[in-house]
Formats: sequence, C-alpha cells, structure tokens
Amino acid sequence: MRFASDNRAGVCPEVLDALVDEASRSGPAYGEDDATAQVTDLLAEILEHEVWAYPVLTGTAANSLALASLCDPWGGVLCSDVAHVLVDECGAPEFFGGGLRLIPLVSPDGRIDPLAVAEAIDGAGEHDVHNTPIQALTLTNLSETGAAYRAAETAALCRLAHDRGLSVHLDGARLANAVIGTGESIADLTWRAGVDIVSFGGTKNGAAAAEVVVCFDDRLAEQLERRRKRAGQLLSKMRLVSTQLTAQLRDGVWLAHAAHANQMASRLATELGRTPGIELVGHVDGNELFVSVDPDRAAAWRDAGAEFYDSPSGNHRLVRLVTSWSTTQEEVDQFAEMASDAQLGPIS
Amino acid sequence: MRFASDNRAGVCPEVLDALVDEASRSGPAYGEDDATAQVTDLLAEILEHEVWAYPVLTGTAANSLALASLCDPWGGVLCSDVAHVLVDECGAPEFFGGGLRLIPLVSPDGRIDPLAVAEAIDGAGEHDVHNTPIQALTLTNLSETGAAYRAAETAALCRLAHDRGLSVHLDGARLANAVIGTGESIADLTWRAGVDIVSFGGTKNGAAAAEVVVCFDDRLAEQLERRRKRAGQLLSKMRLVSTQLTAQLRDGVWLAHAAHANQMASRLATELGRTPGIELVGHVDGNELFVSVDPDRAAAWRDAGAEFYDSPSGNHRLVRLVTSWSTTQEEVDQFAEMASDAQLGPIS
Amino acid sequence: MRFASDNRAGVCPEVLDALVDEASRSGPAYGEDDATAQVTDLLAEILEHEVWAYPVLTGTAANSLALASLCDPWGGVLCSDVAHVLVDECGAPEFFGGGLRLIPLVSPDGRIDPLAVAEAIDGAGEHDVHNTPIQALTLTNLSETGAAYRAAETAALCRLAHDRGLSVHLDGARLANAVIGTGESIADLTWRAGVDIVSFGGTKNGAAAAEVVVCFDDRLAEQLERRRKRAGQLLSKMRLVSTQLTAQLRDGVWLAHAAHANQMASRLATELGRTPGIELVGHVDGNELFVSVDPDRAAAWRDAGAEFYDSPSGNHRLVRLVTSWSTTQEEVDQFAEMASDAQLGPIS
Amino acid sequence: MRFASDNRAGVCPEVLDALVDEASRSGPAYGEDDATAQVTDLLAEILEHEVWAYPVLTGTAANSLALASLCDPWGGVLCSDVAHVLVDECGAPEFFGGGLRLIPLVSPDGRIDPLAVAEAIDGAGEHDVHNTPIQALTLTNLSETGAAYRAAETAALCRLAHDRGLSVHLDGARLANAVIGTGESIADLTWRAGVDIVSFGGTKNGAAAAEVVVCFDDRLAEQLERRRKRAGQLLSKMRLVSTQLTAQLRDGVWLAHAAHANQMASRLATELGRTPGIELVGHVDGNELFVSVDPDRAAAWRDAGAEFYDSPSGNHRLVRLVTSWSTTQEEVDQFAEMASDAQLGPIS
Repeated sequence: MRFASDNRAGVCPEVLDALVDEASRSGPAYGEDDATAQVTDLLAEILEHEVWAYPVLTGTAANSLALASLCDPWGGVLCSDVAHVLVDECGAPEFFGGGLRLIPLVSPDGRIDPLAVAEAIDGAGEHDVHNTPIQALTLTNLSETGAAYRAAETAALCRLAHDRGLSVHLDGARLANAVIGTGESIADLTWRAGVDIVSFGGTKNGAAAAEVVVCFDDRLAEQLERRRKRAGQLLSKMRLVSTQLTAQLRDGVWLAHAAHANQMASRLATELGRTPGIELVGHVDGNELFVSVDPDRAAAWRDAGAEFYDSPSGNHRLVRLVTSWSTTQEEVDQFAEMASDAQLGPIS
Repeated sequence: MRFASDNRAGVCPEVLDALVDEASRSGPAYGEDDATAQVTDLLAEILEHEVWAYPVLTGTAANSLALASLCDPWGGVLCSDVAHVLVDECGAPEFFGGGLRLIPLVSPDGRIDPLAVAEAIDGAGEHDVHNTPIQALTLTNLSETGAAYRAAETAALCRLAHDRGLSVHLDGARLANAVIGTGESIADLTWRAGVDIVSFGGTKNGAAAAEVVVCFDDRLAEQLERRRKRAGQLLSKMRLVSTQLTAQLRDGVWLAHAAHANQMASRLATELGRTPGIELVGHVDGNELFVSVDPDRAAAWRDAGAEFYDSPSGNHRLVRLVTSWSTTQEEVDQFAEMASDAQLGPIS
Repeated sequence: MRFASDNRAGVCPEVLDALVDEASRSGPAYGEDDATAQVTDLLAEILEHEVWAYPVLTGTAANSLALASLCDPWGGVLCSDVAHVLVDECGAPEFFGGGLRLIPLVSPDGRIDPLAVAEAIDGAGEHDVHNTPIQALTLTNLSETGAAYRAAETAALCRLAHDRGLSVHLDGARLANAVIGTGESIADLTWRAGVDIVSFGGTKNGAAAAEVVVCFDDRLAEQLERRRKRAGQLLSKMRLVSTQLTAQLRDGVWLAHAAHANQMASRLATELGRTPGIELVGHVDGNELFVSVDPDRAAAWRDAGAEFYDSPSGNHRLVRLVTSWSTTQEEVDQFAEMASDAQLGPIS
Repeated sequence: MRFASDNRAGVCPEVLDALVDEASRSGPAYGEDDATAQVTDLLAEILEHEVWAYPVLTGTAANSLALASLCDPWGGVLCSDVAHVLVDECGAPEFFGGGLRLIPLVSPDGRIDPLAVAEAIDGAGEHDVHNTPIQALTLTNLSETGAAYRAAETAALCRLAHDRGLSVHLDGARLANAVIGTGESIADLTWRAGVDIVSFGGTKNGAAAAEVVVCFDDRLAEQLERRRKRAGQLLSKMRLVSTQLTAQLRDGVWLAHAAHANQMASRLATELGRTPGIELVGHVDGNELFVSVDPDRAAAWRDAGAEFYDSPSGNHRLVRLVTSWSTTQEEVDQFAEMASDAQLGPIS
C-alpha cells in the first residue's frame, strides 16, 4: 500500500525500454543528440506551439532555473504558501536567482486566489528603489493540495499578472495529472492561458529523473543554457535524460500513466468517502487526496503497512495519499478495506 | 573510431543491469534507500577509511559543491590553468561558492607544480582584509592532459597546502584511470596523501550519470546536504543514481573498466608513437592521449570517420584521443592503421 | 514642519565639529585610526561589555552584514512583517546573505509576538534538508511603528529563540530613542536580554552617515571584516565615520538628542490626542507617532507645508510623524495648531 | 612626509565648506535633493555629454556596481593583473556580480596591452556553454602603477573590446590625475574613446568619501539604482555625499587639486632621479611614483618618519610614493633631502 509519493514509484516500462536502448549505445554529449532534439519536437507537437526546451534532472532545478530567468536578483515572486518552491526546495529559487524573494500568498486550498495576487501587487505600492518589485507569479498545477487550476482560472491569473508587468511560471511536476483531471489540453492550461514558462515533470509520472523547462519563445534561451550548465544540470549523457522524456511524450504514454494514477486516486477517494470517521479534505482533481482522521487511526494504518505522509491538523492527522502509474487496484482496495475496518481505525 | 570523450560511451552492462533492477521497483525517496547507504559502505571499503558520501549527477556539481564547502565566498582556490573547474564549467564553482575566486597556476603538463603553489600563497602576502585569502587547492587526477599524479606527488602538494592553511580537493572524474595508471591504491592517492575531499567519478567509467562527493570526516556534512538539495542535485529517485555507483564499486568493476580503457590508450599510443609525422605530447598515464599533427592530417582523420577533439597548437593541431570502457581493440587498430596510412595523412 | 523622517535632519553640532576637526587632518586609512579604536571603547563603556564593532555607512549595510553573518545562505530569518529589512532595503539581506530567506511574522503593532515566533519555529517541523531552517530572529527597537520593546520583552523573545537554536539580531537604527522611551539601559535592551548582534544607528540621531555593527564576542569577527570590505563599506577615510560615532557616544550626546526627539514626539502626541477627528494609532514610545485622519485633512496639512509620509488605511490615511534631534518646539506647536484648525482639516 | 596614500589626506577646504553648509540644514533623503541633481549636471558639463550618475561611498562599490551591471553572473572581465578590482577589493566584483570572473592580463607597467586583450578573447574560442564568456574590459586610469593611458590608447583598447562584443569600464579613482597628466580632456579619456561606464573618484582628490558611477546612456539605469540600494550604498543623507562632489566639480577644483598633486610627484621624481642608488621605476604620469631601493635605505627612510608602502622586488624594495592635494612642497623637499643623505640610505 504505497501511497507516500509518486516519486517513490519505479520507472515505467516505456521509459525503461528507451533508457536501456539508448544506454547501450555511445552518442553525442551535452544534448547534441537526436533524443534531445526530439524532446523539443514532441513538446511542440503536444503543446501545439513552437518551444525551447531544457531537460534537467529535478523539479527543484527546473523551477529554480525558470524563476531565476524571469526575475532580477532583487525581484519578488508571488507563490502559494504551500508551494513546493517555497517549502520543499531548501531555498533553491533564492540560490539560483541570486537572492530573489518568494512572497507567499495564503492559499487555503493550495490554489492562488486572483484577489490575493491583485492585493499583493497593488498593496506593495511604488516606493522607489526601496522595496522588492514583484516580477513573477508561480502556480503549481496539479497543485500541492491535489486541486487543479482549470484553463480559465489560469488565464484569469495570467491576465492579472501580465497587466501588472509580471511573468508567469507554472510548476508542472504533475501537469499530466492536471490535464487528465481537468479534461483540458496542455496548451489550454499553459501558453493559451498566458503561462510564460513551464517546468514539465516526467519523474513523478514514470521517469527515472527527467524534467524539462519549456519556453514558448527564445527570449530566455541564452541565460537558460548558461544557468543550466552553471548549475551542473547539463549532463554529458543528456541523451539518457532526453530519451526518458521522448518515451513518455510519444504515443500519449504520459497521459495514459496520469489517467491511471488519477483513476486510482478517484477510486480510493470514493471508497474512503463512504467510510465513517474519515473526512476527505479538498479537491481530488488528480492523483493526490487528503483525508483527516483520528491520530490512532493514522497510526494503525501505518502499522498495517500503509505508506503515506501525514501532518497535524488540529487534534486530527491530515493524511496525504498519492497514487502513481504503478499503483495497483489491489493496493487501493486493500487500503480501502483496511480503512473501513473498525478495528484498525476506531472511529473518533 | 569513437575517441572524442569517455563521456560519449554508453552505459556498461553491470551498471545497466543494476539500473534496470532498481528501476523496476518502488523504493524510498531522496537517498533514504539501501543503495545509497551501500555507496557509503563500498566507498569506505575501497578507500579503507570511514567516509561521508553525497551522490550527485554531474562532475560540475560534485566539484562545485566540494569547493563551496571548503571556501568562504571571499576565498581563493588554486587550480591548474587547464582545470575542468576553470575552463569547462561555465563558472559553476563561483556560482555554488557565492563568488569565490579560482586562481589559475601555469601547468605545462596539466599537473600543478609545488613551487607554483608555494609561490602563489607566499607571494600573495598578508594584506589585511583587502585581498583574496587562498583557502583551497584543487587537483585533477587523472589530470586534464592525461598525466597522473603519483601518491607521493599528491602528498607533497597536500603537505604544502596544509602547512599554509589550505584544504585540498581532488577532481576524480577519471580517478579510476589514475589508480590503474599509477598502480597505487585509491587510499594512497587520496586521504593518505592528505586530500580532504574527492569528487569521485562514475559517468566517464561506464555509469549513466553518477558522481559522488566523498569526505573523510563529518565536518562538511550538514552544508553538503543542504547545498546539494539547494542545487537541485538531490534526486527523489536517488536510488537510481546510487545503484549505478554500487554496481561499479562492487567486485572491482570500476577498476576493470578503467584498466581496459587505459590499455586501449596505451595500445593506441604505442601504435601512433611508431608513426612518422605524429608526435605524442605529454604523458599517457590513463585513458587520454594527445598527439600533435599536421592540420591536413587531422582533417583527413575526421573525414575518415574518426571522432576526437582538437585545438590549435602553433601551426599544428593538438588532437586529444580518449578511450573508455567501451572502446574496442578494433577501433584502436582501425585508427592506428588509418593514422599510418600516408594517403590519409600526408607527413608534414 | 519637518516630520517626514529623522533621516532628513541635518548633522548635529557635536558630530559636525568632530567631523570638521578630523577632516582637517590626514590620518591612517581603513579604520587603523584612533577614532575607530575609540568607537569600540566608547561602545564597550556604554554597553558595559566588551564589544567588537564595525562602523559602516547605512542601516541597510549594518543589518545585512549582521544577518549574513548569523545565517547560512539556506537559513531563514524571522522578522516583523513591517521590518525595515523586509520592506525598505530592496532585498539587501538576501544579497549580503547569499540568498537567505526573510520570514515575516504578522505584527499588528510592529512588535513581534513571542507566540508567533514559537509557532513559526515549531510549526516548520523538521523535514530533513528540504525546508528552510530558521536560524535567526531580527527585532527592531524602536520598532518601525514607534513602539519600544522593553528589556523583559526582548529577553523573553531571545530566550525563546535561543532555546530553539536561533541567534538574535537587533536593528537599532533608533535604539537611542528606545533607551529613552523605556528608561532601561542599552545593556538591558541588548546583550543582557540575550541579543547577539546589534545594528547601532547614528544617522537618524544626528550623524551624517554612521552606523555600527556591534558584537559581544569575536566569533563573527573575521567574516564581518571580510563581508564589510567586500561590500564596499570599509572606507579609506573610515576615521571620518568613526569620529561621528565617538562624538555621539561621548558625554551622552546620543541620549540627549534622543531625549529631545522623544520629547517632541510626546508633546505632539499630547496635542494631537486632544484634537477631534484625529486618532492616535499605536504606542508613542520614541520619536515616531502615527495618526489616522480623513484624506482631506492629510491633504490640507500637506498643502499647509507639513512634511510627512502617509499611507492608506481603510478610508482614512495613516500619517506618520517623526521627530528628530533638530525638531523645534515651534514646529511641533505649529503642527498642533494647524491640526486643530477645523478649516485646514474638516472633521470626518 | 606623508606619501603612503592620497586616501590618507584630509578633506580639502572646498569640500569641507560645502559639507558643513549642507550638513547644517535638513533636506530630502535618498538622493531626492538638489546637490545630487547638480552632480549629474556638473558631470554632464565637464564630460560634454549627457550622463546618468550614481554617487556611492567607495571606489570598491563604484567599480563593483559598474562591473555587475555590465556582465552576466557567468561572464568574464578582463583586467590588469595589478588592478585594484583584482587585488584590493576582497572579491567585491565577484560578490556584486553574482559570481562573475575576473581574468587577469599580465601588465608589466600596469597598463593593459591591446595584444593581450585580443589574445585573451580570441584564444578563449567559442566552446558552447562550457566556458566563461568574456563580456567586459576594465581599465584603471591613472593606473595602479602611476602610468596614464592616453586617449588614443584607451580608444584602441575600446575599439578592440567593442569589436568583440565587450563593454568597457574605467576605474577612475585617480582620473583627475590622468587628465592633468595627459593634458587630454576627461571626455577624450572616457566616452569619446569608447568607455561605457566610469567610476569617477572624489575621495583620493580631497573628498571625505565620494565616488560616482557615470553612464552615458540610460540602459543600465534601473539596475544601477537597484544594485546601489541593495548594497547599502544609497544613503539617506545622500546630499552630504553629493555636495562633496559638486564642490569638487565646480570651478575646476578637482583639476586644481590634481594638478597640485601631480606637480608634487613630479618634483619628487626629479629630485629622486638625481639621487645615486635610487632607481625610478615606470612612468610618473600622475601623483604616484615608484622607486627601487636597497632594503636598508627603505628602512632608514621609515625610521626617519617617512610614510609609504613598499614591497619586495628582487633583493630590493619597491617603494611607492603617493602625493595628494594636501602634500606640501616642504614634505617633498624634506623627503628629497633625506633621500640624498648618504647616512640615511647607504648606496647599494
């Protein structure tokens, strides 16, 4: 019952086959290879737009490179107060960005409220050279709380941001899950909505380690190339990263795995929603769900072999359950059965 | 005839098998896994010393993390004027190190002369807070020119550095080749000689992407952990990096591949050394050799399908030939034959 | 009616005399002079403790040097959400600190609530290397809203911080005013309360440009020296900065000027407190007061020649009035009279 | 006999009068004052070109702000191997520039050779994203060795640099002395020769602490404003810095003081040039001269009360003698007499 994170899953067969195939050959170094070129082509195809693409190894690197390229070292970036860039990257955006500042916005359901954006920018006022000029907005879709931004919501936020001179970054570590969850196209959720730069994630969706920074024009090209190299994120055997991405992007593999993960989360949510003493918290738009349970029950689940993260929430525990391409129906049903077993989790 | 770089080679079977095996499973994230623990154990065993080990993705990251941890942002690092950290990493040491300074020493054969070290340090003088205090020395073994430092040479440099308050870093992207080339143990070439921190390379020796920063005490542990995460070099599926390293470190695989690569370089050197019009330049202590040839001949070799890097050297070309675990005897012999063919390379 | 800021005042006679005297001579450069040595001696005397003192030019530099020296680049600093370091220094702490993070705490009256500190630290949890470790707390006394921390309040905050491994910095741009306002000694408000490092301000209290970073042991000495030089804050004619500080610190000049400024603020507060339609907001512990008035009234004051900053506050304006060593009783009375004039400010 | 440095001199009467006058008044903060506006106007007048001017406190700050604004964090700056930015600023350019790299060129007489510039740039080659792109050249005029670049020499270097895409910075801490020394206009020595940005120095020429970054267009305006504030170099009482500059720039005061200093250096050089056992080294184009003497003689001079810096030079001492606006003819003659006294300095 592996629900701790989609980043604990193994590598999906399509990626593994491609990796083995490419690894068995020699080839050009530092991204001068065919696979890397194909990443750009395949992204352009699924995004329905010309792209400039920079594969890297981690979401942290992708996000930080993107934000550093959008902002001056003295600039500010609006983010959700539960954003991965804020709470899970050990200050990587500040490091890559030469000391830029992340400005958290209270986001009760993990999604940023347009009013909060407007207020943050307009409230900051002018103030000459003394304050921190807000230069970018970063969104996460699928958000850290499992909720998806719909295309129209993203577009509204981008409009607001652009009107005030901000650029918009999208942390898409689980963008595939948001595409499935919203039923909207990746183009609609990104550039058509006004997003300027995307961290597109492969790792949580079946890759070994493959993320890619995607731009829709070449304005940031030179600095992204330099910043990536300078951060030790340009691999000599970059083709082994790129081939993971092409394996996912080809033939809709990325969507199929995300659809499976979402379906498993949905099935689990349905089962848990029926169980007395378990309260579903927030939206289940993708492959993450959150339930509030009695601490004893959470402990009992863990003792029974379930893997998950939880955190305090009043006198309850907020349990996060994440599914992946490799989650089986059996795991879901086993968890649901355990959860409904009063002996394993006394109703509070 | 693939002699451009050992980083263009594919992944060796031992690593690939281990990678496939680990990738087929789910497992703990961010290095909390067994493979990562084993990296430390195996390194301790081959190094005959307790170690603290931090796997990362690239040599650039390994070197920069090490130097940033040894130096203040206002510190200086002595390096060879052909060091990879100086000429091939787009200023990554300065980036990771918050603006530290690399101070190049003229190194005719790629190895640093102890006299140059002494002169640089003693010549800098005191000068209060105004100048750049030299705090570290970085060596590359196998060096960028293919020459190895012997244990005694390394020890002499370390003694000099330590006596003047410097720490010593070793860029060991090709350390396996130096171990084979010198016939000295990895312990003798590192901590026994006084090296404080090592970038131990896996990628050029058959891994997909796996390097590891190795310390011999825990003084730098906390900052290395933080710096690695902050640089986007802590992978969620870190076990897929670590398993590459364990596959190499187990059963002497790393030495076997290095021995093969060195043997191929040696064979190639022997053949080319016999060929009129080709001048071997420098030492061939590992898997790199340099030859000086007429520009027409270099061009002819390339036209004949040979892959290599070359650079101007007076009115000749300095051709760098690098062998790897995957270089075949056929490639070597094919190159040697081509080189001896007067029609393909008119003797200058 | 100059109430815009104490940093618009001229230079007090004591400082100006000293400056002219020192400027008329040649002398040692870079702080190797007698005046600079005396700064340390005089600070030690008034602080009743051995000190290590580093004169600089601006409060921004003093604060940023202090925070950079207390924190790792990946560390977090708790601050008030109206702190000068957060809202008025263009990200200088992040710049000097290599990308450290300021973490604002909601501070309704400009002073940090111990509960908020405890909650921020304890709520952040462990979380391995992923999050931002909170390493320091910065207080401003006199705070940006004009309220003073008493010694016991400072001590409680320091205890809380130290118990959790944090260091404590005090932004004392107006510390003299807090000393007068609380009637407590500077020793009680700083090191006796547990403060680790102080930015002691001279500029707002009659100097031309003179602030000094003060430590109570030598742990940070080397890095403060280096960081100051590296930031272009070590003047060749440092003696001209130091002599300003000695002129203030000698014979209680610093206290006399602060006492005058506080008295002027107090007199103004008393007068305005009596005036219908003007609401005093917050404490008047030093030389700053805030009043909430109708926008028309604020505009009328400005038209009548009064200088001040104001900001929106609901449908009113929050007017900040700052007095200084050079504020005259005539100015205060003139302002009070104007404020009480119904024609200049129609009661809302 | 004060010949240690022009930065040990006191403040000239013109500056001191202006400082006292401005300090006796209150006035607008952060450079919103008349004096600061006049700095721009006066610089435009003497430079015969529209300028954007940013007063700061130290030459280190001026130089570092300028270089940071010209270069990417991954860029390289060519400089003389005796440049102040390289050897006397504790890595400030790297700090302000986010890790940029200074690339020293061997400069036997302190002035950069155009051939060395061409070789450094052309020799670096392309090399994709791996190396450090050279983006700027920095010159010091008057150079650190006392030699001046003439306008034609500066122009040749700028042409070379511009042709290769570099920007040019001039460290003009002693630019006034170079103007006098060459007899060429400040316009000819700067923008007419192609210089893009200048650190114009006041401190060494009679100010207390006043330098100014000068640009000839507004391309760098926003980042210079931000970087200056962020570095703690924007004073609240900036008018006290600006008034020093206006006092110098008005009525040719800056030229008069430089002319005096140069004349004193010239007189001293003439006298010492006649003295057996003293060898003048290099050019005396401004207010610095260097002589090579026997160590015993240098020691004897110091014992006799002369102030100067010296450094080893073979088995001799290289003594640097610097004159200033405040050097008296008596000091010069006293030194010359002492130097010619065989008892004080046995001829080697």
